[in-house]
Amino acid sequence: MTLIADTEPTVFETVESEVRSYCRSWPTVFERASGSRLFDEHGRPFLDFFAGAGSLNYGHNNPALKRPLLDYLGGDGITHGLDMSTTAKRRFLETFRSTVLAPRALPYKVMFPGPTGTNAVEAALKLARKVTGRTTVVSFTNAFHGMSLGSLALTGNAGKRAGAGVPLSHTAQMPYDHYLGGRVPDFLWFERLLEDSGSGLDHPAAVIVETVQGEGGVNAARAEWLRGLADLCRRRDMLLIVDDIQMGCGRTGEFFSFEEAGITPDVVTLSKSISGYGLPMSLCLFRDELDVWEPGEHNGTFRGNNPAFVTATAALDTYWRDTALRDRTLRRAATVEAALGELGAGTAPRGRGLVWGVEFADGERARAVCRRAFELGLLVETSGPGDEVVKLLPPLTVTDDELDEGLGILARAVRHTA
Amino acid sequence: MTLIADTEPTVFETVESEVRSYCRSWPTVFERASGSRLFDEHGRPFLDFFAGAGSLNYGHNNPALKRPLLDYLGGDGITHGLDMSTTAKRRFLETFRSTVLAPRALPYKVMFPGPTGTNAVEAALKLARKVTGRTTVVSFTNAFHGMSLGSLALTGNAGKRAGAGVPLSHTAQMPYDHYLGGRVPDFLWFERLLEDSGSGLDHPAAVIVETVQGEGGVNAARAEWLRGLADLCRRRDMLLIVDDIQMGCGRTGEFFSFEEAGITPDVVTLSKSISGYGLPMSLCLFRDELDVWEPGEHNGTFRGNNPAFVTATAALDTYWRDTALRDRTLRRAATVEAALGELGAGTAPRGRGLVWGVEFADGERARAVCRRAFELGLLVETSGPGDEVVKLLPPLTVTDDELDEGLGILARAVRHTA
Amino acid sequence: MTLIADTEPTVFETVESEVRSYCRSWPTVFERASGSRLFDEHGRPFLDFFAGAGSLNYGHNNPALKRPLLDYLGGDGITHGLDMSTTAKRRFLETFRSTVLAPRALPYKVMFPGPTGTNAVEAALKLARKVTGRTTVVSFTNAFHGMSLGSLALTGNAGKRAGAGVPLSHTAQMPYDHYLGGRVPDFLWFERLLEDSGSGLDHPAAVIVETVQGEGGVNAARAEWLRGLADLCRRRDMLLIVDDIQMGCGRTGEFFSFEEAGITPDVVTLSKSISGYGLPMSLCLFRDELDVWEPGEHNGTFRGNNPAFVTATAALDTYWRDTALRDRTLRRAATVEAALGELGAGTAPRGRGLVWGVEFADGERARAVCRRAFELGLLVETSGPGDEVVKLLPPLTVTDDELDEGLGILARAVRHTA
Amino acid sequence: MTLIADTEPTVFETVESEVRSYCRSWPTVFERASGSRLFDEHGRPFLDFFAGAGSLNYGHNNPALKRPLLDYLGGDGITHGLDMSTTAKRRFLETFRSTVLAPRALPYKVMFPGPTGTNAVEAALKLARKVTGRTTVVSFTNAFHGMSLGSLALTGNAGKRAGAGVPLSHTAQMPYDHYLGGRVPDFLWFERLLEDSGSGLDHPAAVIVETVQGEGGVNAARAEWLRGLADLCRRRDMLLIVDDIQMGCGRTGEFFSFEEAGITPDVVTLSKSISGYGLPMSLCLFRDELDVWEPGEHNGTFRGNNPAFVTATAALDTYWRDTALRDRTLRRAATVEAALGELGAGTAPRGRGLVWGVEFADGERARAVCRRAFELGLLVETSGPGDEVVKLLPPLTVTDDELDEGLGILARAVRHTA
Repeated sequence: MTLIADTEPTVFETVESEVRSYCRSWPTVFERASGSRLFDEHGRPFLDFFAGAGSLNYGHNNPALKRPLLDYLGGDGITHGLDMSTTAKRRFLETFRSTVLAPRALPYKVMFPGPTGTNAVEAALKLARKVTGRTTVVSFTNAFHGMSLGSLALTGNAGKRAGAGVPLSHTAQMPYDHYLGGRVPDFLWFERLLEDSGSGLDHPAAVIVETVQGEGGVNAARAEWLRGLADLCRRRDMLLIVDDIQMGCGRTGEFFSFEEAGITPDVVTLSKSISGYGLPMSLCLFRDELDVWEPGEHNGTFRGNNPAFVTATAALDTYWRDTALRDRTLRRAATVEAALGELGAGTAPRGRGLVWGVEFADGERARAVCRRAFELGLLVETSGPGDEVVKLLPPLTVTDDELDEGLGILARAVRHTA
Repeated sequence: MTLIADTEPTVFETVESEVRSYCRSWPTVFERASGSRLFDEHGRPFLDFFAGAGSLNYGHNNPALKRPLLDYLGGDGITHGLDMSTTAKRRFLETFRSTVLAPRALPYKVMFPGPTGTNAVEAALKLARKVTGRTTVVSFTNAFHGMSLGSLALTGNAGKRAGAGVPLSHTAQMPYDHYLGGRVPDFLWFERLLEDSGSGLDHPAAVIVETVQGEGGVNAARAEWLRGLADLCRRRDMLLIVDDIQMGCGRTGEFFSFEEAGITPDVVTLSKSISGYGLPMSLCLFRDELDVWEPGEHNGTFRGNNPAFVTATAALDTYWRDTALRDRTLRRAATVEAALGELGAGTAPRGRGLVWGVEFADGERARAVCRRAFELGLLVETSGPGDEVVKLLPPLTVTDDELDEGLGILARAVRHTA
Repeated sequence: MTLIADTEPTVFETVESEVRSYCRSWPTVFERASGSRLFDEHGRPFLDFFAGAGSLNYGHNNPALKRPLLDYLGGDGITHGLDMSTTAKRRFLETFRSTVLAPRALPYKVMFPGPTGTNAVEAALKLARKVTGRTTVVSFTNAFHGMSLGSLALTGNAGKRAGAGVPLSHTAQMPYDHYLGGRVPDFLWFERLLEDSGSGLDHPAAVIVETVQGEGGVNAARAEWLRGLADLCRRRDMLLIVDDIQMGCGRTGEFFSFEEAGITPDVVTLSKSISGYGLPMSLCLFRDELDVWEPGEHNGTFRGNNPAFVTATAALDTYWRDTALRDRTLRRAATVEAALGELGAGTAPRGRGLVWGVEFADGERARAVCRRAFELGLLVETSGPGDEVVKLLPPLTVTDDELDEGLGILARAVRHTA
Repeated sequence: MTLIADTEPTVFETVESEVRSYCRSWPTVFERASGSRLFDEHGRPFLDFFAGAGSLNYGHNNPALKRPLLDYLGGDGITHGLDMSTTAKRRFLETFRSTVLAPRALPYKVMFPGPTGTNAVEAALKLARKVTGRTTVVSFTNAFHGMSLGSLALTGNAGKRAGAGVPLSHTAQMPYDHYLGGRVPDFLWFERLLEDSGSGLDHPAAVIVETVQGEGGVNAARAEWLRGLADLCRRRDMLLIVDDIQMGCGRTGEFFSFEEAGITPDVVTLSKSISGYGLPMSLCLFRDELDVWEPGEHNGTFRGNNPAFVTATAALDTYWRDTALRDRTLRRAATVEAALGELGAGTAPRGRGLVWGVEFADGERARAVCRRAFELGLLVETSGPGDEVVKLLPPLTVTDDELDEGLGILARAVRHTA
């Protein structure tokens, strides 16, 4: 099957940089999207189990968000607002407070960094360092926190780290849950380093963690491990930052992925699905008493992406005033787990809510599965240090039929590539 | 005049972080915007001579861009596309090639980093370091290149630098044009450091420069200084990066602010007004032979902000297929300069195209001018290391009457605060 | 007992910096020394079980070294020679080759850095980074490698690290043998980090290790752990640097402390007892094929301390042409271990050869033991992250009687402070 | 003339590392030395106008120092004393106070770092950073402060910097006196950076300077420039560190090279000639109120090199209780300057006291002059970023005849290589 004619190079090949990547895995030109499906310019549909790397938890062009967005833009609402006060921002803040913060009794202030995940992480790092007066931030093996220099120093992937072109410093890596195969008590090494003034670990300002490592290969930490980490942070005077950029906004069931563990981080980063519509937006949340910023001490031109406030408000109103979405996500976790368990891949499927990973023997096989799935009309991608894990991130709004359809295609792709 | 009742704290005060800043200068709640004007929730109009810090060169909700955007969103075009190939991206690339690159014979590849300026700068730094295998990047006094850790190391402002919480390294600062009051030949110090192997300056990978420093106080480099810099970079084997995030997209007249000087940088960063509609978008452009990226070596979730591609395409089609906008901007430069020259502030007005600065004795006075202007219905802000410069960035689409009106209000604000 | 009258402050108190330390533990003024004994200005003798922190393995003013030194100085031999070729250096090199390198078939080149341990470590780091083109060097918990900035980044002690005043970077810490209480297989964590490209550990240039950590609390690695480390370095392409500054020159029995484990490091640092007479001298040894230095690429004014070459040559001639010293040291290890085992301190004594540690409940007790020992005429000091370990480093030339005497005093000091 | 037979490689070539350098310039094997002369193993004399790179200001094996040293060693004085109080250290401290500190009313405490220059510089950096809580230290173009990582970051030479293998940071370079050819007012650039909060220069902890840059090419700062620098440091709250390692101990006339300018630095480093006999020793001096060290916060095994204390005491007693040496050095400066002025090299000779440089067209010529001088029996070396400066550092105790003889040989070497 040839999706792009090889007669002459396209503008993507002649003008766009070699850095482009997903377009190589999915060699067609997309035009429209609706709910769980993308359509290419020839009208061919693709079931989307990648969901913008977790940015489209409510599906593509969700009508409940689209209507308010079109009204807002049609009515000449503010599009670009720096950090001016706007009615759109006010509605978002009020809604975020009433649907997210208040019900969970979370004592957070809300900061709008530049509207990408890495900007939120950079803000969190600055704040943690400012509050504590220390420099070291601890992250975990196979973590991914972004590509700007501060965030990249926390990221595990060797290739991405090498891209920095300068040494990455002021960070230390600790083993994520399961990393040492269950042969070592949780936090034995980390706590030993902290308690021993001769360990060489400078007292960290903070620890940053993903509850489920998406880019790292869908590694899901146990709730007790997360509780142990929160306890360690409290006892050893380190701020706990949960990077909920990919796993927040309901991906694992609850709005925040850390709720299941019953912990309250000091700082939380959100992005990806917070706007609900795929529009750039990010938040940095932190305990009220940590709000020691000077005005403008961290800023960014697009930190007031007002159209995103509008869709974010609609998404919260639609999906987070009751527990329906959460309940459905948690129910579907079992469906997905069962289906993946029958794939016969190298290891058991792993995940939570609607983020799942299937590990294969190597990256070559996993990539072949994704290629074949694409040919069969399903978008999925690999993750993990060696690309050996096929990652599933369907929209949370996926229908039962779509879910079955996608899992069926995946099963065929696995068989075809055996 | 009381714009916000002090009866009880607003949600901005109770929920939003103390880091907010512009909302403090302009104490009202904005709701709508059109062309050169913003309207607050009470319907009060404000003439906008800040234009989203240069992100709204074509004004607010420009109808020529709004129509295609509403059509695109209404028709369920792709909103979030990572770096998949989409029809919206193709149209943008083709249009950018035909209206921007080809007419200027610029040999650039186009990279889409995360859609904020600092992400584009971080990408440029990585590329320069990768291509050259060196680490040091030179920036200039009073430069502003962004707030993530890599960009912040290039930024001059002491307060913003201190926010990093870690030492900022792998950079060196050189004097910008005029910095030493004309008492020193251009590049005497810089070239001496480069030619002397005992100078302690490690051979730089690149030099990054703004042709006009916006945040730094509207310092406009002379064309001959820029040519001298380009020549120095060529002779001394350093890449020249022009950060055209604020000054590009026609702000100084030509599409790129460096065109007037007749130079061709190796790398160019664009953001702010590139989408034309205030939507987050950024580009990193570089010579074809520098395109040594591995696929995905630098990435970001929102690098394919397709609605922004739509408005960006419309903006290029509308304003950059002929020279009308450019010609008008250049003509108006004279109008603004003349008007500002009569303000009687401390020094002569400075600027190019439609970016101008008026320096006052100190930051207190300049802030008072901006406060008074706000009361009189004009949005302007200060810049410079001590906030001593009032900066004017009207939309390029401002009408003659609006321009006169704004300049008149400014004159009154200056008189009232004398 | 008052050793220093408190009538008026001494020149040590009024002129010497507060940074002085040992003089606080041993409050008297020393004048002469011979063999295992120091004498203060009142003629009071002290048995020296500290031996210049391992710099006086052959005792004070050893006659076999003193004679050639006096002859050399009396005959106007070169004292200061930079790195000129001198007859004294030639004799040292020839003797070092014939007594140390050749019998052990060690393929090393010899470098003379500045004559302190930290200078040798800095040289080793530079070389490892130059040879591999990488930056990260791995050290171990509770390591001590020196106080200049490069070495300090490898050192574990929090107080000493804090003294840097800048972040210490380009290093990573791994658990030393026994660090996790035997609950974790050797190198499980280290190897996992190396094999996983997503671990966040940048591929190290080298690993630096002490076979027995002196400052760290007399932690003695098992031979099999050292072999495992050497194997790991070989398999994972990292240079192995043994810092034998304190444990080399026979302290553990063999000339090099790593001989017992049967490993051959890529790089070895020596200092302290290499001159044999307490004169500043240090060496950096490395495999022939690693000798990629440019002439003068690392240098230092006192790298040719010729009087030290003279005593070093005499020491090698006297003690390393046969195995008598080694055999005696190994025999005495058993004596010391047995005596210490009867002290009833918190844990079993630990050590090898003639370096031993006795751990007490806390630093307060250990310091009390040392203070009492001083009053009883024995010089010993604490080590370990909390100063909780009393460290014994008698001269290797100590007599049987002196050894018994010292161990007896120590036992009394322990009893008196119980 | 063949000084070393090329029959078979020497032990220097087969065993010593390629890093050796001076032995390449002076290809013979030295054996003895006395006063201003070295003798090789064949008895051939060489007049020494290099003086151990400034470590032998009182000549080789000066009898006034040799006698006390032999007595001390012969009488079993303490050789290695860590930082214990010893009678030798007391005599040194008392003598240093009475001959150096008190007559000049210098309010300094004395610290003994590891006995090499770079260790003293590392100590000074730590102290400056600790006292101020800041990280940046400013050094000057063509500075040389040592080879360990902290000092190397202050050093200008590109080759030596590259040897670090890691980026050198937390420093900034400023133009030394004359660096910009007199075309720029002193400190224009430096002060502008300091006064402008947007300059990108983080407020420095300290400035470190050599009054005459020896390695950098014998660049002698004017007294008024040094006074300007001291004034700048005072006004802008930066500590002033004078690195007097090569230029102190009378090299420029006065004991400290900064005395002529009438300034009092906050911190001073001394090494090289402080022991007077070529024995490793170094000092870090600082104002009493800066003595904020914790005990042992910076240490080093050989910081109590007691034989060096003995010769240092003798040197101070012999040469610094009156002004005879100083007067003679200042007189001879004129002799040397006149003689060098007749060499007809590229530029005028430069220097102060008994440190002088003659610049040639390029390094090749300067090296040829040194080679020819060696053949004619004179030891001189090149310096400067391109090795283009022949540097003269005769012992201060050189006789009139020796001085004439050396200058005569140099003149012949210049003629022979023309």
